[in-house]
Amino acid sequence: MVTPPEAAARATRVRLVVTDSDGVLTDAGVYYSERGEELKRFSIRDGMGVERLRNAGIDTAIVTGERSGSVARRGEKLGLRHVLLGVADKRAELQRLLGATGLAPAELAYIGDDVNDLGAIQLVGAAGLTGAPADAVPAVRDAVAYVCRADGGRGAFREFAEWILDLRREPSRRNA
Amino acid sequence: MVTPPEAAARATRVRLVVTDSDGVLTDAGVYYSERGEELKRFSIRDGMGVERLRNAGIDTAIVTGERSGSVARRGEKLGLRHVLLGVADKRAELQRLLGATGLAPAELAYIGDDVNDLGAIQLVGAAGLTGAPADAVPAVRDAVAYVCRADGGRGAFREFAEWILDLRREPSRRNA
Amino acid sequence: MVTPPEAAARATRVRLVVTDSDGVLTDAGVYYSERGEELKRFSIRDGMGVERLRNAGIDTAIVTGERSGSVARRGEKLGLRHVLLGVADKRAELQRLLGATGLAPAELAYIGDDVNDLGAIQLVGAAGLTGAPADAVPAVRDAVAYVCRADGGRGAFREFAEWILDLRREPSRRNA
Amino acid sequence: MVTPPEAAARATRVRLVVTDSDGVLTDAGVYYSERGEELKRFSIRDGMGVERLRNAGIDTAIVTGERSGSVARRGEKLGLRHVLLGVADKRAELQRLLGATGLAPAELAYIGDDVNDLGAIQLVGAAGLTGAPADAVPAVRDAVAYVCRADGGRGAFREFAEWILDLRREPSRRNA
Repeated sequence: MVTPPEAAARATRVRLVVTDSDGVLTDAGVYYSERGEELKRFSIRDGMGVERLRNAGIDTAIVTGERSGSVARRGEKLGLRHVLLGVADKRAELQRLLGATGLAPAELAYIGDDVNDLGAIQLVGAAGLTGAPADAVPAVRDAVAYVCRADGGRGAFREFAEWILDLRREPSRRNA
Repeated sequence: MVTPPEAAARATRVRLVVTDSDGVLTDAGVYYSERGEELKRFSIRDGMGVERLRNAGIDTAIVTGERSGSVARRGEKLGLRHVLLGVADKRAELQRLLGATGLAPAELAYIGDDVNDLGAIQLVGAAGLTGAPADAVPAVRDAVAYVCRADGGRGAFREFAEWILDLRREPSRRNA
Repeated sequence: MVTPPEAAARATRVRLVVTDSDGVLTDAGVYYSERGEELKRFSIRDGMGVERLRNAGIDTAIVTGERSGSVARRGEKLGLRHVLLGVADKRAELQRLLGATGLAPAELAYIGDDVNDLGAIQLVGAAGLTGAPADAVPAVRDAVAYVCRADGGRGAFREFAEWILDLRREPSRRNA
Repeated sequence: MVTPPEAAARATRVRLVVTDSDGVLTDAGVYYSERGEELKRFSIRDGMGVERLRNAGIDTAIVTGERSGSVARRGEKLGLRHVLLGVADKRAELQRLLGATGLAPAELAYIGDDVNDLGAIQLVGAAGLTGAPADAVPAVRDAVAYVCRADGGRGAFREFAEWILDLRREPSRRNA
């Protein structure tokens, strides 16, 4: 449990938002033809969330277990520095990322939707902010600080980003 | 706030309906393959809205921040005179469009769904009609005269068009 | 208004179910790429509706204002004898079809979703059965005998087919 | 009717989960272009269900009436041993599969959504476990032991898999 004042304090420290792809940036759908995997569907409103985080000095990274060229291309379009595909152990991958970037766990936020996100959620949730789309699996919804009203691919990432940005604005309002 | 009689008076002046693309004509989805952006999904019912506006002497224009060939092709199919892609500042672009066409702001209607539409909504809303899909971001829903029952890509544009057409018909009914 | 006994009597005469494509067999969506229109989405459950009608001796036809190769291919897959594309006046086209097939209006059923279906609905509805998806435009919902619980592309055609088939079975049950 | 204790007893015997494709692994949608059938949409969360069953020693098979290359490719991606396409009589096909694998009907679970699944549901349901997506046709929902809260293509298979896995875990909890 993260209390609202604690969440606001954590939000001011966030420098990198890490997101799962399938089920968060997408609605978990994957379109196949007779040639195999073809398409995934992303949300333009989520792209605006990446931009609004960047304007606040916060980067975004994608960490996913799948190896989809579509995710790589979407990450490029959004100008993300870290798009990590084919990650078998997301918690371990986050620890490598912390080492490579010099960031502390308290400077991360993480949003995921399925059981293979639980390790990363545990790692980040101890000192940083965690979230899940409305349609995440129950074990993930129970493990995060913020459950979105929006489903994956339908604005969940944007909502998580706005939640963080709102938390960061509130202290200055209180000071005003 | 635009009162119903004021909305009806404004509707009679509308000569051009300007719409955002992503999140209004589409459900904000964008389909990526390993080659990059591939598809966007539009609505045939919205296309019928463009046709019904045209039958009433009202043109339609698209103004979007993205540069999607899919939007250009959809605009061509609908026979639109103005399809403005890659627009960084929609308010400024609308002012150029007013200059080029000789239209006054009061002759415009505008429908958008995200924060980058707020400048255009403010420009048009002073004397013209504004709308938003049901699933627009809260700041946009709060700024427009008409919030659709339909989501973007699911009939929002059509509903906005019918709202304007109904408002135009009502005075003559009252005279009947 | 068609009373239940009248609907049952009409159902026993139906030999051809005519359906609009966009908004009935599809959810009104059309997917564009930079090359133009690419895809439309149909429902396998609707395909099963065509098959179940055929098993009851009833044919299915598509009449649409659009000229989409996707609709032509879907019609071929379903084994339809009549797939009429690019139809500007659906009522007139139905009258031609009645002339060509020797069918009477009372032997038709029709399902549509938008204002350009109203003429056909009026023609068929005088003596045959008419329907609309749940998300049809209000003027169409008000004009038909049966409004589906399902939306277009989400089982509306199948539901209309099952409604007709159920109506045909009921008299024999009463005789049993 | 399968009582909860009986369902738990059956769950411990399951060695193969058989699933229909269209309407269970997909939302029954099929995307056509002017070249014919192009795409079907699957769910990554369902893929995780296949993996979690495998970790519990349970295989998954697809049996479908359609002949879609997209389904074959999805089955390969998920590492399924049995992907049976173009099956006209699913009950007979299951009996062949039982013969080929040496499995008993009580070792199967089956999930389907439409009337052509009823024979297979009857075969499996006598001694094994059966399920249906929330949006299955009424006759199928009435025939199965477990109706999912999720629709087809939106997590129904995953939910059916988790239901079985939960049932298998419960006895050991009771012993704990």
